[in-house]
Amino acid sequence: MNEDILHKLAQMLEERKQAEPEHSYVAALYDKGLDAILKKIGEEATETVMAAKDGLPDKIVHEVADLWFHTLVLLTYQGLGPEQVLAELERRMGTSGLTEKARRVQ
Amino acid sequence: MNEDILHKLAQMLEERKQAEPEHSYVAALYDKGLDAILKKIGEEATETVMAAKDGLPDKIVHEVADLWFHTLVLLTYQGLGPEQVLAELERRMGTSGLTEKARRVQ
Amino acid sequence: MNEDILHKLAQMLEERKQAEPEHSYVAALYDKGLDAILKKIGEEATETVMAAKDGLPDKIVHEVADLWFHTLVLLTYQGLGPEQVLAELERRMGTSGLTEKARRVQ
Amino acid sequence: MNEDILHKLAQMLEERKQAEPEHSYVAALYDKGLDAILKKIGEEATETVMAAKDGLPDKIVHEVADLWFHTLVLLTYQGLGPEQVLAELERRMGTSGLTEKARRVQ
Repeated sequence: MNEDILHKLAQMLEERKQAEPEHSYVAALYDKGLDAILKKIGEEATETVMAAKDGLPDKIVHEVADLWFHTLVLLTYQGLGPEQVLAELERRMGTSGLTEKARRVQ
Repeated sequence: MNEDILHKLAQMLEERKQAEPEHSYVAALYDKGLDAILKKIGEEATETVMAAKDGLPDKIVHEVADLWFHTLVLLTYQGLGPEQVLAELERRMGTSGLTEKARRVQ
Repeated sequence: MNEDILHKLAQMLEERKQAEPEHSYVAALYDKGLDAILKKIGEEATETVMAAKDGLPDKIVHEVADLWFHTLVLLTYQGLGPEQVLAELERRMGTSGLTEKARRVQ
Repeated sequence: MNEDILHKLAQMLEERKQAEPEHSYVAALYDKGLDAILKKIGEEATETVMAAKDGLPDKIVHEVADLWFHTLVLLTYQGLGPEQVLAELERRMGTSGLTEKARRVQ
């Protein structure tokens, strides 16, 4: 699994801050501001739900990619990045692992 | 950036298919079925929007982590995984890179 | 409160089924189909959330009107109408009233 | 169509501001605050989308009623009411009617 794609994507999204809104979809979103980015997140979440109800694997992957992409746009817009989200997920998994272990011991 | 966390998380979510619903949050979600998982995705998308409007970085990271987590639960439930989503994101970035290059050449 | 506006609106939405998609926003939505209507509902719900976080009364009213409007489009598309939703709300209020009454008696 | 149900419902929601959170679902929502109300709106919008994808008329009516109910809770919480939303819908319908008329004249 080529996972450093998130890192490369975050770099590209950072670079897009210097791009012209008329030449870049992401620069146009930054230019429209926070509400435009959040509207896309709401939209892509709804489309993920619809794709899953349709039960079409390709469409689900496509919509989840759209949803992750726009959350990455939000993170970059706010001066954050995927590394914080991955660290948070790791922290939880560690806790969850410990919880499971504790349960097994009981 | 420790990115293979997504791979480890996907493995854990796969293993939870064998867990008892009363001992595991994820197993309980699988047991409730698709609509329960999708409801969580809608919920976490709304909470991401609210956290961003509040402008609190920690809360944004927390809610995006929740959103990614529940999309991973959906992918696993459907026999899919993060590798397909990352491949889709890579495919797009490749295309986007080429587009940029073409523009620079013009 | 001029409440029969919902009834008039439902009639107008029914009539739009005969309109040309290029001349009517609603006919264009019907033409695009269910997913397009549902996408609008997801969008307007997100915009309602954002307006409320901004705390702007006019914007809240505007976005809730958008949300109700698109749920009415959905109802009409499915051969349903606001009268069923109002009946359901009345049924609940009746139940709730009885619950309150029972509580007062205790 | 018994449309003054919205008016009665708004009155009931206003009265619930005096109720104890432990005795009333609505009072408990007010007590939790704006984010809790908005989370419900996001949730019910997602459930409306899922019900529509399932194509079950009763479920659609049920979920749209839930969605309207929680937008009424939001309006009341903000010192607003359904009359403003209905007035906004009427205003638009008037405009739309005029637009249609203008088109017919042309």
